[in-house]
Amino acid sequence: MILSLDAMGGDQSPDMVLKGVQVARKRHPDARYLLFGDESVLAPLVARESGLASVCEVRHAATVVGNDEKPSQAVRRGRDSSLWQSIQAVKDGHAAGVVSAGNTGAFMAMAKLALRTLPGIDRPAIAAIMPTARGDCVALDMGANAECSTDNLVQFAVMGEVFARTVLGLQNPTIGLLNIGAEDQKGTETLRQAAALLRESTLPIRFQGFIEGDDIGKGSVDVVVTDGFTGNVALKAIEGTAKLYTSFIKGAFQSALLPRLGYLLARPAINKVRMRTDPRRYNGAMFLGLNGIAVKSHGGTDALGFANAVSVAVDLVTHGFNETIKGEFMKVQRASGVAPGDLERAANG
Amino acid sequence: MILSLDAMGGDQSPDMVLKGVQVARKRHPDARYLLFGDESVLAPLVARESGLASVCEVRHAATVVGNDEKPSQAVRRGRDSSLWQSIQAVKDGHAAGVVSAGNTGAFMAMAKLALRTLPGIDRPAIAAIMPTARGDCVALDMGANAECSTDNLVQFAVMGEVFARTVLGLQNPTIGLLNIGAEDQKGTETLRQAAALLRESTLPIRFQGFIEGDDIGKGSVDVVVTDGFTGNVALKAIEGTAKLYTSFIKGAFQSALLPRLGYLLARPAINKVRMRTDPRRYNGAMFLGLNGIAVKSHGGTDALGFANAVSVAVDLVTHGFNETIKGEFMKVQRASGVAPGDLERAANG
Repeated sequence: MILSLDAMGGDQSPDMVLKGVQVARKRHPDARYLLFGDESVLAPLVARESGLASVCEVRHAATVVGNDEKPSQAVRRGRDSSLWQSIQAVKDGHAAGVVSAGNTGAFMAMAKLALRTLPGIDRPAIAAIMPTARGDCVALDMGANAECSTDNLVQFAVMGEVFARTVLGLQNPTIGLLNIGAEDQKGTETLRQAAALLRESTLPIRFQGFIEGDDIGKGSVDVVVTDGFTGNVALKAIEGTAKLYTSFIKGAFQSALLPRLGYLLARPAINKVRMRTDPRRYNGAMFLGLNGIAVKSHGGTDALGFANAVSVAVDLVTHGFNETIKGEFMKVQRASGVAPGDLERAANG
Repeated sequence: MILSLDAMGGDQSPDMVLKGVQVARKRHPDARYLLFGDESVLAPLVARESGLASVCEVRHAATVVGNDEKPSQAVRRGRDSSLWQSIQAVKDGHAAGVVSAGNTGAFMAMAKLALRTLPGIDRPAIAAIMPTARGDCVALDMGANAECSTDNLVQFAVMGEVFARTVLGLQNPTIGLLNIGAEDQKGTETLRQAAALLRESTLPIRFQGFIEGDDIGKGSVDVVVTDGFTGNVALKAIEGTAKLYTSFIKGAFQSALLPRLGYLLARPAINKVRMRTDPRRYNGAMFLGLNGIAVKSHGGTDALGFANAVSVAVDLVTHGFNETIKGEFMKVQRASGVAPGDLERAANG
């Protein structure tokens, strides 16, 4: 398996990317990497890190997409960038997937343009894995589409279900549509229509209906479906709260001598919680619905976080995520004689 | 000061309400309470609790609005309910504010119908106080309006600012509009227009621009403005995450003997965090923008939580929140010669 990496994306690149590959190559001994970026910078770094040369190949890319660059600008002017070149490698069949810690908007815009969406999918979604009281869940869309149609939401549900089944390894994962109440009449017309379609459709999925914001942490469902605006706000609100509570608890332990001593005694147990909720463990937002695997790492992550994003890409490739999606949509079409888009059009008139 | 209380709303009512008044009467010795509900149930309970009779007056209301009742149904059929009667007492000038732990949707629908919105306000909003790394902030709308116009958001900003100034006691509070990125072009057209209006308007407010979900916990601004859908999901996601982290930490301490011992040593410090983040401390969602103070308590709260909701109502009355709002909107009109609604219409054409 070959993955292409944008070696210049992220706050600590390219160092963080190369150290990340060091971690990843022990986890995935069969994987090989195409590193895109300034060759004069990358080649000596690869040579210096022992063992890297045997799994990496440097490919020159002259420019870097800046973090503040607008996606539309990046797409127009950034064809010789490490980001575009690393995506292009997937399009050209030289790599099975791409990982970048660079500009999210530019990454999504370029990936959409170069890779196009899978048959049956109108728009790609950003998916993230989150900790819950009942194990991990997957949530989408986390920010690719600020406004979503009923069709988009139904397609996200199908993609999320396949993800939970293939990558998280869950049998018969449950699906919930994020809303402001569980009752049928709650929320927007788009949400009510999406719920009706998911309830009535012949799709082989376990749709649980509407869920609320606190159901995410409870683990009430395995797949959380929402539009990109709500999803992005919720994801960041959750991350912010996790940080706030961690700092409150940290402050409490450091407040006096006895709590400090108490911390020493409880440290192994607390470290377990820290590992369980480590943001690096959940690093790697997947762009689902494209003809090619694309994973976005947090820009501010370290080598371990980047390695985890690489592992997410490896998982998506290994479990044949895209092939399964294609199969699902063909099944839907065969079973009903219509594509999900037709279902909505039929419901509307 | 007289407050009217829906004595029958909430899971543990009327017991929880009466015990809540016991707590509240010590905090607010000058406050008096009209208790609405079944007189045959309430009268003996008031007589039994020592000291209550001197601050409470029972007013008979024959029925109770159920938790599952639709707001529209409750409004049509619930005129002899404890909820409607307690709101009516504010309308009739018998009470300065109303507190209920009952059905949120029915409470909002009835309060809107009976009390009407303040001049300059098209729609009321639900506001909540939340803990941040920099003290408390106020966020609105937390669920009254699933869809909001630019006008609504601008009015929420003004109400939130007055709330932060009068009730939270902050000088020159800062305001942020919740979005999925800080850049000008992010989000929906409605949000971009609202930001433009808040930036250009002559309102005497400190608008910081767009904020993201994690800015809430950071305390980046004192007032978080958003539509009721996003706000409700974010609020519940935050509550859910707080619960999840609390349970993770609790689990860690109980996992073995040494952590248990560590917990004993750290307990006073941990209890401080617990008090700081106690959901009961943040109980009491305010319905802002109505001709009368209305505060919604969590349905599942206890006496202490209900007393806190009463305190929120007392604060709103004491600080003349509604009078200040009216003054602000008159100032805006005088300064610009137009009402906020006109501002948007001018911007649009």
